[in-house]
Amino acid sequence: MSNSPIIIRMQATDNVAIVANEGGLPAGTALGAEYPGLTLRDKVPQAHKVALVDIPVGTAILRYGVPIGYAKADIPAGSWVHERLLDMPAARELQGLPMATVKRPTPEPLSGHTFEGYRNPDGSVGTRNLLAITTTVQCVAGVVDVAVERIRKELLPKYPNVDGVVGLEHTYGCGVAIDAPEAPIPIRTLRNISLNPNFGGEVMVVSLGCEKLQPERLLPPGSFRGIPIQEAGQQGEQIDDKLDVVCLQDSAHIGFMSMIDDIMVTAQRHLERLNARRRETVPASELVVGVQCGGSDAFSGVTANPAVGYMADLLVRAGATIMFSENTEVRDAVEQLTSRAATPAVAEEIVRELGWYDQYLERGRVDRAANTTPGNKAGGLSNIVEKAMGSIIKSGTAPIAHVLSPGSKLSREQRGLVYAATPASDFICGTLQLAAGMNLHVFTTGRGTPYGLAECPVIKVATRTELAKRWHDLMDVNAGRVADGELTIEEAGWELFRLLLDVASGKKTWAEQWKLHNSLVLFNPAPIT
Amino acid sequence: MSNSPIIIRMQATDNVAIVANEGGLPAGTALGAEYPGLTLRDKVPQAHKVALVDIPVGTAILRYGVPIGYAKADIPAGSWVHERLLDMPAARELQGLPMATVKRPTPEPLSGHTFEGYRNPDGSVGTRNLLAITTTVQCVAGVVDVAVERIRKELLPKYPNVDGVVGLEHTYGCGVAIDAPEAPIPIRTLRNISLNPNFGGEVMVVSLGCEKLQPERLLPPGSFRGIPIQEAGQQGEQIDDKLDVVCLQDSAHIGFMSMIDDIMVTAQRHLERLNARRRETVPASELVVGVQCGGSDAFSGVTANPAVGYMADLLVRAGATIMFSENTEVRDAVEQLTSRAATPAVAEEIVRELGWYDQYLERGRVDRAANTTPGNKAGGLSNIVEKAMGSIIKSGTAPIAHVLSPGSKLSREQRGLVYAATPASDFICGTLQLAAGMNLHVFTTGRGTPYGLAECPVIKVATRTELAKRWHDLMDVNAGRVADGELTIEEAGWELFRLLLDVASGKKTWAEQWKLHNSLVLFNPAPIT
Repeated sequence: MSNSPIIIRMQATDNVAIVANEGGLPAGTALGAEYPGLTLRDKVPQAHKVALVDIPVGTAILRYGVPIGYAKADIPAGSWVHERLLDMPAARELQGLPMATVKRPTPEPLSGHTFEGYRNPDGSVGTRNLLAITTTVQCVAGVVDVAVERIRKELLPKYPNVDGVVGLEHTYGCGVAIDAPEAPIPIRTLRNISLNPNFGGEVMVVSLGCEKLQPERLLPPGSFRGIPIQEAGQQGEQIDDKLDVVCLQDSAHIGFMSMIDDIMVTAQRHLERLNARRRETVPASELVVGVQCGGSDAFSGVTANPAVGYMADLLVRAGATIMFSENTEVRDAVEQLTSRAATPAVAEEIVRELGWYDQYLERGRVDRAANTTPGNKAGGLSNIVEKAMGSIIKSGTAPIAHVLSPGSKLSREQRGLVYAATPASDFICGTLQLAAGMNLHVFTTGRGTPYGLAECPVIKVATRTELAKRWHDLMDVNAGRVADGELTIEEAGWELFRLLLDVASGKKTWAEQWKLHNSLVLFNPAPIT
Repeated sequence: MSNSPIIIRMQATDNVAIVANEGGLPAGTALGAEYPGLTLRDKVPQAHKVALVDIPVGTAILRYGVPIGYAKADIPAGSWVHERLLDMPAARELQGLPMATVKRPTPEPLSGHTFEGYRNPDGSVGTRNLLAITTTVQCVAGVVDVAVERIRKELLPKYPNVDGVVGLEHTYGCGVAIDAPEAPIPIRTLRNISLNPNFGGEVMVVSLGCEKLQPERLLPPGSFRGIPIQEAGQQGEQIDDKLDVVCLQDSAHIGFMSMIDDIMVTAQRHLERLNARRRETVPASELVVGVQCGGSDAFSGVTANPAVGYMADLLVRAGATIMFSENTEVRDAVEQLTSRAATPAVAEEIVRELGWYDQYLERGRVDRAANTTPGNKAGGLSNIVEKAMGSIIKSGTAPIAHVLSPGSKLSREQRGLVYAATPASDFICGTLQLAAGMNLHVFTTGRGTPYGLAECPVIKVATRTELAKRWHDLMDVNAGRVADGELTIEEAGWELFRLLLDVASGKKTWAEQWKLHNSLVLFNPAPIT
């Protein structure tokens, strides 16, 4: 990276810009020809903001063309604008928003792009071929862990077309208020994760027996594909409508090993079918991509997220599905979202989901400002407003076609740009996007995170070259090259789009190579008992 | 088990009793000499209730001498009294309770009982010698899993006195409202688990770097024992007051393997010290036993829980600490608890904790009746009142000496019988008891659960012989022998007490033999973001 100052302003109206130079810039640095006469009054760390003009007390500080706060004191031009100098604006009221007001010409469809995926019985496409073992309750997790380990060692070598086995473990299922008004959220999340396209429509369940979340409540008849009936000399395949459940308390289980054996035998039935599958060429429209960011910095909204936004537009043009999420990180951009909704009904749904979340936070006596971390602030993000403006750029420019409630699953018809309303917590957001039907995950990070999921490939995008170099075997893409002037946002977006197709076809991400797997984390707004 | 009817009535005033016979009893069975002329009108399943007299509509149904409900219709003598025949009584108000009214003669101290434990620098005693790796946030879990696996394979063989390595993983740390009024509960839980006596006072932390729960917030100076300073030729041991943290975002980490190596090197420093420790003879008063029940049935309050209660009294007499918990399962017995409090101040604390929990449930629009599971009901427990009466028997008869808020740690002075106020969820209760300082766990079950923890041995007690036989290699004790007439409650209590000393000294439980490990599950009443 060059030693001459690199200053990034997002909009012409902005009165602040960020310093892109690695290590920041010292006080006294002249900011160059674009900002004649402007000299830094303070040392400004990398990714932090500098005042481009004198900003009198009470004046709006504009980044991305919007007020990210109001000056607490007079801020002379050339000052470091850190979070202690800003009063945060109040959250935009949810009344009187512009509803579906932005009209855009339909962009040119993008055709001819394909990947090699696993076509499922319901028409969806997996990017991996995994055996998932659904669990009803944490009680069975210890037993399932032992069984999964044995399946991995003893069975998987016999089924080379199967990519792996995943125990869908969680902390729900019992000791929870299962009839509470909000209990449907965690329950449908677990149900829909079991039906994720990467599991090939094969559903097997391990249950304890006495738990509140009974297998039939988790997966009611008709919600899943049942047990294969295999008879000697049978032509074609017949499917029973029974749920394939190993119940540990079943009186047939004499001792621990009989439970393990039962799980192994059941797994084998599904492994047989999974192993018979082959990748086939499918259109890019079968991608269901979930995007999120974590460990964000002020570069997130400058490099990685705009590149992901461009990629999102390409996916929409290709007829695919792209979800963005994170309620507290879009709340301050609500106006931009409702105006971009495809229809007033979609805009209403955005308002309903964010309004519900406002109340959820209020019940716990906090607000959206509970988002932003010490790392965000160290990375130059002053508050949730600035973070939000950088966050929603991931959604690109397409109209928001659908809104999804937490834990719900997209139908095959719900394509294009989707707002999946989830908390911003990386793991809860990822878990809910898995439930929505995600078959590929894109994660941008400025501070760095080793995030990975066992259920779905995660492509990690670094916002800064320094991070991408240091974490050379954890970051899949370096969007920092945009700040370095090596790549345009369009080029970065295309590179990501092509990588999506490669990873969807089987290319391993770094998180997959190292087998870095984070937990499923459920969103349960209801009490436990 | 004999074919002649086995009918168990808990108190002389009860108008119902339970059928103990395996498989239940058919309609028409004469109940024998103790109940002259009484014949079953219905088939009554094992552990379910039979009406001993005619119970007119609206009359209290008495078990354990208390009303567990009111008859919804006339119930003729000999009828099966199932949950659909009962109206549940309202919860006892928390005003006007008897406060510390029960006075008991101090029982004779029990001396001379010892076990072989690991004495810690702070005076506490471990029953296992484990290396625990504290984590600040779920983000690091994938990396810690890989490191733990390598430590297990490459380092542990060199340190034969160390029993194992445990990654203290959890879903908290970021994406949570960390300044919410109730956030101190999960934070202190994680802190105090790191300080559990089974980890030898060795604290090492893996942090991401940008998370909300920074290492210094998790473990402030003075809350832990720092890094050993080892110099050539040094006499004795010196301890730095610095927290031993591996921060993944540290700029010194170039690539994934440098993170793993750093964790390994740090682990080795603590393994050296752990490996130098030896078991020594310590008095039984050093036991800190947490008891809970899960997958309960109507036998729980008849066999296993009374035996545990007798064991609890022995522990109190021996000067040890015994915790019972589970707010929703004591709520209907609040009068018995406040009256048994050692002092009015302790009674006030019971009222405060249960009152807080009432409000917590109300905020989520549920109440204590959200407890009881389909399995409880199939096991003969009609509702939470009946379950509660059977549950608190685990606490024995000693005065309640202390009350502990969720996530708090007992001081060395807080001995005797403790009410640790926790939710009833098995995993949350166990996690909070670990934070309290538990070094041995006793778990009773009627339906059967393979529950186990990596952090502490769990002794599982079956309420029924049939379960103990079927799960012969999962249940450590068969309390069903009490119902079979083979053992008195006193004998079962003594057997448990002696087993505690053996397990504390190193004897492995079944869950340890099979390596059945459930997750730590935090109680976080605050919102996520």
